[in-house]
Amino acid sequence: MVKPIGIAGAGAWGTALANAAAIAGNDVILWMRSPQQAEDLGKTRTNERFLPGVRLHDRITPTADLNQLAACRAVLLVTPAQSTREMTAALARILPSETPLVLCAKGIERTTGSFLCDVVEEVRPGAPVAVLSGPSFAHDVARGLPTAVTLACRDAALAEDLAMALSGPTLRVYHRSDVRGVEIGGAAKNVLAIACGAVVGRGLGESAKAALIARGFAELLRFSRAYGGEAETLMGLSGLGDLVLTCSSAQSRNFSFGLHLGQGQSVEAASGGKLVEGATTASALVALAKAKNIDMPIAEAVEQILSGAWTLDQAVDALMNRPIKSEH
Amino acid sequence: MVKPIGIAGAGAWGTALANAAAIAGNDVILWMRSPQQAEDLGKTRTNERFLPGVRLHDRITPTADLNQLAACRAVLLVTPAQSTREMTAALARILPSETPLVLCAKGIERTTGSFLCDVVEEVRPGAPVAVLSGPSFAHDVARGLPTAVTLACRDAALAEDLAMALSGPTLRVYHRSDVRGVEIGGAAKNVLAIACGAVVGRGLGESAKAALIARGFAELLRFSRAYGGEAETLMGLSGLGDLVLTCSSAQSRNFSFGLHLGQGQSVEAASGGKLVEGATTASALVALAKAKNIDMPIAEAVEQILSGAWTLDQAVDALMNRPIKSEH
Repeated sequence: MVKPIGIAGAGAWGTALANAAAIAGNDVILWMRSPQQAEDLGKTRTNERFLPGVRLHDRITPTADLNQLAACRAVLLVTPAQSTREMTAALARILPSETPLVLCAKGIERTTGSFLCDVVEEVRPGAPVAVLSGPSFAHDVARGLPTAVTLACRDAALAEDLAMALSGPTLRVYHRSDVRGVEIGGAAKNVLAIACGAVVGRGLGESAKAALIARGFAELLRFSRAYGGEAETLMGLSGLGDLVLTCSSAQSRNFSFGLHLGQGQSVEAASGGKLVEGATTASALVALAKAKNIDMPIAEAVEQILSGAWTLDQAVDALMNRPIKSEH
Repeated sequence: MVKPIGIAGAGAWGTALANAAAIAGNDVILWMRSPQQAEDLGKTRTNERFLPGVRLHDRITPTADLNQLAACRAVLLVTPAQSTREMTAALARILPSETPLVLCAKGIERTTGSFLCDVVEEVRPGAPVAVLSGPSFAHDVARGLPTAVTLACRDAALAEDLAMALSGPTLRVYHRSDVRGVEIGGAAKNVLAIACGAVVGRGLGESAKAALIARGFAELLRFSRAYGGEAETLMGLSGLGDLVLTCSSAQSRNFSFGLHLGQGQSVEAASGGKLVEGATTASALVALAKAKNIDMPIAEAVEQILSGAWTLDQAVDALMNRPIKSEH
């Protein structure tokens, strides 16, 4: 008997992935922290809070008991980026060391400035880790609209195996071995999404936004190259694809935060009191860039705006008045 | 005295470029075919037909006399792609052989399947040719919104010289020497824009559109590599930047054509009887790809839809049911 796929975290994305994995032919254990939520989900078969209107597939078993994940063939970690260390530690206690953990959050750990995969490897040394990333709104996946993502694992055979297991008629999972590149794309794009939102909010036009995406992508490539990611990864679904999606839609919290900034709201008001992952990532990213002398004027401009050092117009002036030069 | 910049073609883009060049500090000769239009433009100082509401800069001289371009330091060719051969021949008769021609149209010549730069070089052998391309709606440039484009010329010093001459406070012109890469990005992106429009028109969601852009970009890279373009060019303003812009806005004729196709209109109705450059490019691009065995499933799907061989849904099924594989 094929072992089930485990999903840790029943937010919108975790629930959508659970459905996609079930449609792809897997039994799925869907873990969430709250016993009440697990009971409700078992009864109503819909995640009213995070993914309303989508019926949970019959092959999904909701639970609040983390031990239920112990017998899974792989566990997808779909909890917030900043709880990655705590969740990995909890899972490390119950999972066999050969069970792969598939990281689905995007970001950089705030307290340490570490990439999330490094956090997972630090907490669970020697165990297989993969990253799943790409342009995918939970609601699109849940509604069965065509979607494509990338799954990366240094063990190429395992990456292929997991990609095949999760791919179904509407979700295509491509595989790669460049974990670092996939992770950098997922984290850094949130910073650029803030900049894009600000450009749109300020009414600077579609051409300016497109230029920002292209020049921001150049920054992202430089950063990724310096930190060991492959250029081809960045050019794929988890880099370019996710960047385009996040920079195009008010469904993205980072873009929408930037949009409000561009419309003149304060950083506090624009965030609506919620954690904006890209704002956390911005300072970590700029610090990592400085450590290796990587030129990232757009990421730096975002950081300057968020810290209150620059107004948006000052940031635009600074970017437009850099010396004219060769592209790349 | 510095010689003026010549602009051949007073559509929206030619007029916007004329204004940008004047703001950058140049005298500009703006040529158009119709003496009546030239006279009107000289009097009203606005191009009511193509760029209403934008005042022509004082340093621009409109004319219908092509000979006026003979003394320019460079001429920007901003006429439709399919008239490139005829216009180049007319200019070749009056321009000194050292005057650079800057190609601003995007596409592939329908009758020969040739890249436009090759057409220019064939008609005007040995004379310098450059390409200007990038994410730029004429109205954004004309309104003075921040915009960035790429100018490529094999003579790197000339590329820099022209980029400096055209750059102003709101238009940044980056320079490169990879003419082929810039030209391929500009032409091929119109085909992908049709596909993106169709995905949006059919209601397939933002995630599907982002995946299409990323996978389409991978096709574009493969094509460009095979035809001698540099990967870095494609990752820049004239490739990625222009792709993102063209695939995001109903202002783009190619995207809007695809949108109507996606909503169920016939090819004829969707085009509204107008020439859609991407539709012309699609078959030329697929033929060039086949000649070098380049895998371009999205461009092929567009061609199949346009030729009536596939419905849109058949094309989507074909793309989603390809074997799962490694990305790139």
